[in-house]
Amino acid sequence: MKKPSQNPSRIDKQARDYGASIPFDRRLYRQDIEGSIAHARMLAKQGIIAGSDAAAIVKGLNSIGKEIERGRLQFKVELEDIHMNIEARLFEKIGETAGKLHTARSRNDQMALDLRLFVKEETRKTIGTITALQISLVELAAANKDVIMPGYTHLQQAQPVLLAHHLLAYFEMFQRDKERFHDCLRRTDVLPLGSGALAGVPYPIDREFLAQQLGFSKVSTNSLDAVSDRDFIVEYEAAAAIAMMHLSRLAEEFILWSSTEFDFIEIGDAFTTGSSIMPQKKNPDVAELARGKTGRVYGHLMGILTIMKSLPLAYNRDMQEDKEGLFDTVDTLQASLEVFARMVRTVKVNTERIAQVMKTDYILATDLADYLVKKGMPFRKAHGVIAKLNEYAATRGKTFRELGRKEYREFSPLFTGDVYDITSASSVTARNVVGGTSPQQVAKALRRARRLIKR
Amino acid sequence: MKKPSQNPSRIDKQARDYGASIPFDRRLYRQDIEGSIAHARMLAKQGIIAGSDAAAIVKGLNSIGKEIERGRLQFKVELEDIHMNIEARLFEKIGETAGKLHTARSRNDQMALDLRLFVKEETRKTIGTITALQISLVELAAANKDVIMPGYTHLQQAQPVLLAHHLLAYFEMFQRDKERFHDCLRRTDVLPLGSGALAGVPYPIDREFLAQQLGFSKVSTNSLDAVSDRDFIVEYEAAAAIAMMHLSRLAEEFILWSSTEFDFIEIGDAFTTGSSIMPQKKNPDVAELARGKTGRVYGHLMGILTIMKSLPLAYNRDMQEDKEGLFDTVDTLQASLEVFARMVRTVKVNTERIAQVMKTDYILATDLADYLVKKGMPFRKAHGVIAKLNEYAATRGKTFRELGRKEYREFSPLFTGDVYDITSASSVTARNVVGGTSPQQVAKALRRARRLIKR
Amino acid sequence: MKKPSQNPSRIDKQARDYGASIPFDRRLYRQDIEGSIAHARMLAKQGIIAGSDAAAIVKGLNSIGKEIERGRLQFKVELEDIHMNIEARLFEKIGETAGKLHTARSRNDQMALDLRLFVKEETRKTIGTITALQISLVELAAANKDVIMPGYTHLQQAQPVLLAHHLLAYFEMFQRDKERFHDCLRRTDVLPLGSGALAGVPYPIDREFLAQQLGFSKVSTNSLDAVSDRDFIVEYEAAAAIAMMHLSRLAEEFILWSSTEFDFIEIGDAFTTGSSIMPQKKNPDVAELARGKTGRVYGHLMGILTIMKSLPLAYNRDMQEDKEGLFDTVDTLQASLEVFARMVRTVKVNTERIAQVMKTDYILATDLADYLVKKGMPFRKAHGVIAKLNEYAATRGKTFRELGRKEYREFSPLFTGDVYDITSASSVTARNVVGGTSPQQVAKALRRARRLIKR
Amino acid sequence: MKKPSQNPSRIDKQARDYGASIPFDRRLYRQDIEGSIAHARMLAKQGIIAGSDAAAIVKGLNSIGKEIERGRLQFKVELEDIHMNIEARLFEKIGETAGKLHTARSRNDQMALDLRLFVKEETRKTIGTITALQISLVELAAANKDVIMPGYTHLQQAQPVLLAHHLLAYFEMFQRDKERFHDCLRRTDVLPLGSGALAGVPYPIDREFLAQQLGFSKVSTNSLDAVSDRDFIVEYEAAAAIAMMHLSRLAEEFILWSSTEFDFIEIGDAFTTGSSIMPQKKNPDVAELARGKTGRVYGHLMGILTIMKSLPLAYNRDMQEDKEGLFDTVDTLQASLEVFARMVRTVKVNTERIAQVMKTDYILATDLADYLVKKGMPFRKAHGVIAKLNEYAATRGKTFRELGRKEYREFSPLFTGDVYDITSASSVTARNVVGGTSPQQVAKALRRARRLIKR
Repeated sequence: MKKPSQNPSRIDKQARDYGASIPFDRRLYRQDIEGSIAHARMLAKQGIIAGSDAAAIVKGLNSIGKEIERGRLQFKVELEDIHMNIEARLFEKIGETAGKLHTARSRNDQMALDLRLFVKEETRKTIGTITALQISLVELAAANKDVIMPGYTHLQQAQPVLLAHHLLAYFEMFQRDKERFHDCLRRTDVLPLGSGALAGVPYPIDREFLAQQLGFSKVSTNSLDAVSDRDFIVEYEAAAAIAMMHLSRLAEEFILWSSTEFDFIEIGDAFTTGSSIMPQKKNPDVAELARGKTGRVYGHLMGILTIMKSLPLAYNRDMQEDKEGLFDTVDTLQASLEVFARMVRTVKVNTERIAQVMKTDYILATDLADYLVKKGMPFRKAHGVIAKLNEYAATRGKTFRELGRKEYREFSPLFTGDVYDITSASSVTARNVVGGTSPQQVAKALRRARRLIKR
Repeated sequence: MKKPSQNPSRIDKQARDYGASIPFDRRLYRQDIEGSIAHARMLAKQGIIAGSDAAAIVKGLNSIGKEIERGRLQFKVELEDIHMNIEARLFEKIGETAGKLHTARSRNDQMALDLRLFVKEETRKTIGTITALQISLVELAAANKDVIMPGYTHLQQAQPVLLAHHLLAYFEMFQRDKERFHDCLRRTDVLPLGSGALAGVPYPIDREFLAQQLGFSKVSTNSLDAVSDRDFIVEYEAAAAIAMMHLSRLAEEFILWSSTEFDFIEIGDAFTTGSSIMPQKKNPDVAELARGKTGRVYGHLMGILTIMKSLPLAYNRDMQEDKEGLFDTVDTLQASLEVFARMVRTVKVNTERIAQVMKTDYILATDLADYLVKKGMPFRKAHGVIAKLNEYAATRGKTFRELGRKEYREFSPLFTGDVYDITSASSVTARNVVGGTSPQQVAKALRRARRLIKR
Repeated sequence: MKKPSQNPSRIDKQARDYGASIPFDRRLYRQDIEGSIAHARMLAKQGIIAGSDAAAIVKGLNSIGKEIERGRLQFKVELEDIHMNIEARLFEKIGETAGKLHTARSRNDQMALDLRLFVKEETRKTIGTITALQISLVELAAANKDVIMPGYTHLQQAQPVLLAHHLLAYFEMFQRDKERFHDCLRRTDVLPLGSGALAGVPYPIDREFLAQQLGFSKVSTNSLDAVSDRDFIVEYEAAAAIAMMHLSRLAEEFILWSSTEFDFIEIGDAFTTGSSIMPQKKNPDVAELARGKTGRVYGHLMGILTIMKSLPLAYNRDMQEDKEGLFDTVDTLQASLEVFARMVRTVKVNTERIAQVMKTDYILATDLADYLVKKGMPFRKAHGVIAKLNEYAATRGKTFRELGRKEYREFSPLFTGDVYDITSASSVTARNVVGGTSPQQVAKALRRARRLIKR
Repeated sequence: MKKPSQNPSRIDKQARDYGASIPFDRRLYRQDIEGSIAHARMLAKQGIIAGSDAAAIVKGLNSIGKEIERGRLQFKVELEDIHMNIEARLFEKIGETAGKLHTARSRNDQMALDLRLFVKEETRKTIGTITALQISLVELAAANKDVIMPGYTHLQQAQPVLLAHHLLAYFEMFQRDKERFHDCLRRTDVLPLGSGALAGVPYPIDREFLAQQLGFSKVSTNSLDAVSDRDFIVEYEAAAAIAMMHLSRLAEEFILWSSTEFDFIEIGDAFTTGSSIMPQKKNPDVAELARGKTGRVYGHLMGILTIMKSLPLAYNRDMQEDKEGLFDTVDTLQASLEVFARMVRTVKVNTERIAQVMKTDYILATDLADYLVKKGMPFRKAHGVIAKLNEYAATRGKTFRELGRKEYREFSPLFTGDVYDITSASSVTARNVVGGTSPQQVAKALRRARRLIKR
């Protein structure tokens, strides 16, 4: 028959270091203490431990919290994790009474609690940092609301758009990110404490009281699930991966626009660096770093999914690996959003250069086709006519504007003098549908964005 | 100056095959036709095209839809994608009028529309298949509601739990999956049509009408975002990855429980296979396959995240790669859920074997510790006493039940005759907290599960 | 006690479809038949079956091979996989003798064999397609060997380089890819047949003979490993992921260089497409598609790693999931390389535009700093001087070349008339170290590349 | 025109922290100093700087190296990275001469050098840790070389195998891992120094001398590639992912075998832990942790692949993100291998329990089929006969051994008394083919393993 494991002091030192989580789970000390205090109070309220014991425990925990805050508690690897480090210190402070705190509780539900408290808090903070970036984008858009730039598909100039419209596309992406984090929050906001090791606890505990004390709106409904569920972490990381994807797209555009060849924007010096060898350089490092950091966030998502794959119920030690990836995801996403929020505020739009680029007016080809359509030609046919016109002009090194009336007529008799009324300005103004790039729509979108930010 | 691209007929054959999406996007033919019909009606309603033209277009499209359903339309790779294949056929059917359909529309917003219609439909179907599996789990739980089995942590026997409780843990996971798909659905339910290629369209279209016709509850608010957004696909795939993770855990347990060493369940013959070489085998293939298929779903998620990383606005051809991974994710998840739903119904629980396993009663160690706690010993101390008792018993090859009163007393004077009242049954009954494994709580959980299923 | 699985005909239809591999493993029919023929010959040689039986089997298999080639064999899902489909057909053709073929063999070692034969073959083909792309790159480099372009870091113009040097950087990457595939080939080139289901076989088989017949240079040394090892697939997919990463970088540059803003190259019409709505577009679709397809190859790698994670020995049905990802990886990588090889041949370098870009000569800043260093100034100091000089010039809208001697002198007395000798040409010529961009080094590199291609 | 970036002191503090790499790249200080010393010596040898300057630089660097070793150098975030921290300290120590060190060098080739030195060193160390684990496995196999256990497929008992054979399957996997790391080492062993920022350097440097000094066997052949290549990191991480996959499989088996239900092995107390709540537990934590850590290594691989995807040449700041994932991969893999090597040495095989499991002899079904084949029945037919025999026996609760001769005869007249000679021992002995599980083959495999270890 199987014998239980021996004295922990006999553990191999290397194995202990391999398994020690205190180097990283110490980050959860506030949550751990907060949870233990609520637990002690509940135990007393239910008469499971004496009120005086609870009071001693709470006092002890509060004082340990302060010690940690001030960096005065030396964490010990041989005590493995944050729970045991705090508990050991509690024994030092209040003696054997400390042993009563772990009544009706297990490290499994305790850790699930700490993590949920952490993710709830950080999710709210993440939403706040997204809003900060949205504000910067809206300000930049508003400050340049008349600038018409090339809109691109396939990185080819496609149709004129307002720069503000382009920037607001990112506003939309980040708005969805916020929604996703809110949804994730709802599923995180569930109290696992009271699930014991896996089966619930044989004490008359009051889980609703715990939930109330700790600010949860629901209690978990299956103890096996509660201790082995890490969905809320996976979901946070999935939402973070999507948000970083959005940031990587914005970063890519800032990098492109900062190149000599595009030269559409200038990022403030406080957010670029020079080169150790090339004195002329002004590198968009922050944007590049954010683009690169997308990789690590994707990696953490893949990591946690791999960890959880095909684990039998309930808790398995593999799950200890949930933390570092989560912490780094939280830090990376928040730092990236914050630094972008600040950087965007320093962006200067090079309106002259953009205006110059718009002079080559092949970007108006769709408008010319639409011109013919409005005069009665089916769209597909009009498209063909303009393709030929475009080739004709390009071969001769002319812009559309530089073509003569006669030249136009050779391609279709529907062309009349008003073809010259087609400009970038007329092009954007014409796209006056909900979500379109017309100044009127964009003004409306800016107002909507500001409303959403204030919410 | 740049010249536009030439006649598509000049395209390199290999390049054409490389880029052709018709081999897979043909799957979207229904959505494409549905969208085109709504678009034609809207164009007529707004006076952009004549009512008679719209009627001809709608009639043509309906008849093409039927041709495709019946497998009578030969798709052509040289026409690249589903849009062009249908449009070309429309030209054959109704002549030049067909050319008017593409007014105020681009392939970019058209494809975004088709995909959203598809994901909406499949998300609903996915939710339905999850419910089917939940029903099977609840039935299996209900049919075995008195079976007490070992609960595990670290794959070590930990505490007794009701098998029904264990199965209901999976019910919870799948319930969260459904919520996630519902959240995703909300963000998918946004009409992109009317965004044109990227900037909106210069026609007085009615997007609200389109939304209503096509069953969308919102219209998109930024055209650049609308054509370059694939969040709804990433989000579906992320939710699918989590659901497959849950399924892989259930699969793992079924595989374990089907082994000779565990022997807790027998999966119906209709869901196992024999061996080509070993006549005695009964392999839990379906469970293994589902566990393996988790890999492909994770892979598709990583794929789409990689594709979208750092793409500048708006549409880029990279995004064509969004489809195959999505289709395979949808098919894999739904098929896995469906086959599991059927398989679970054939599972026979080997209650005798489970009862036999429960006889070795070290799994009651926590209950013994709680026994001492209730008699006044602090938990940590009680834990230590029982660890020693356990070692004592194991060394002598005895179960707890087989120890004499005297032997108990040697470990603590708190032990009295009622220690023999501790059994698996008393253990589960004692865990009578919300979410706990007591028969009363599990009965309540079963009722709740049935309510949620009916919703 | 456990009973073996029943008659396969009782299997649930949905479960059968879920598990059927014939829709994709049919692709391995040639390898399967080749392996079976070798096996039959070996059995006869060893006297395990009669020579006449072997002859009948070989004849039957050959004729089945032809049927499949001609599309005349109807594969049946109820026969599950390619092995059983072929075996069933063999029974139809030669009767009971067919039953002797499976002596001393299992589906497990048979499938391992088929996969290794497939990967070996495709690895060689992959290496060939890489070489084809290398040839195109070398030709393009050679045809433009005098073109000096901006070299970039951080997408900022950094220092002048030869375009040929830039293109040869990709040659190097692909050369490493080839090495990696060669290494992978070495580990794939191991015969697994003879491992039976997992334990070896109880017949006097001759594995060396099999290896020789089938072109393997080694036989596997552990039967459990041989049937459960898929390292060679993971390794192929990892090498493919790296190769696609290289291709995605080249694709990115082609897309950038094709933009109006860069305008460095023109890709042949046969490899670009127009737009359904914007007549002026010339989209670098092939490059975009390749960049996007990187995602699916990464995804397949993640998929197979996930599948294999924590599988106990030996064969598990999860491993059936190894095939589709592999096939798609092989097809995607080879098709991407091939279409790139063809596309690169159509690239026209816009030398005028590049020359014009080089006129803004801040890119020579490092050369100016090196000029001062050679006259005795420590590098860090020289770097500082040139940074100031650069700012001075940029503020005045002047290039370096347009600054007067006096202006130079104000920044350092070390400047003399020979500062005007610094040009793009002098810059590249000066970098005459192994691996540097000087024309002499690049000519040498081209010769080396050609040698490596011929190997 | 673009102006160069300003004074680094103007950088935004948050941006600086975001981009600072000194918190992690400090780990490369030894490599950085080693590279700088070699560079200084080469510069002097070539007459690019004075010999006395080189001497001062070398002396300064050596003393800085000692400072860092002793933890006496305070790294500064405002100096960004390890290069600048060391260089700044060098200025403090030897004054302006320090500025000459950066002649003919850039941070780009310097970092590429540091990383290659690091990966070379760690790859060798990794190979060593793999060997340590192989030794433990071989010892465990040798110590239990007569133990016959069930071999599994689909986690179903399949055929008897020697435990030693099973363990040696892992030896094979790790042997391939070592080969892969050796291959990777070959591609890492290339000197990038001398590539400058991207284009090579305009000084008469001696790269062969540098290679020799620093222990590289080759110099890079393209400067653009040399500074932007991170293949060697991706490849290390891919090899690490495969090695962790192998470890996760071994971990899974140890976890299974440690369960009460299997009970095949006992892991030493020094490598298991108890429970905070369940006194009877003996958790295989180390194995679980290793299995979980597979996720983070997979994640890092996905991270670096994502980072490098579609980066244009040459260096981009995204690439700074290459380090943390690499460091953690190296640490995780090496620590996992080391702790496993130690843990395996403590494993005690529970031979009694295994013998008991083998008594249910349905695992001999293949042997019974082979028995009939050897008496002339075609394999497929024999397979069918034994399947029926097995069902007959199982229904009656009998093992094969317990069936009477008459009962055998009812299934086939080919059965005679020698059918009772079929035992687990006869089964493994019969599989006497290369790679098979017979004692003779396994003894040979053990000898081979020992030879390979010594190499």
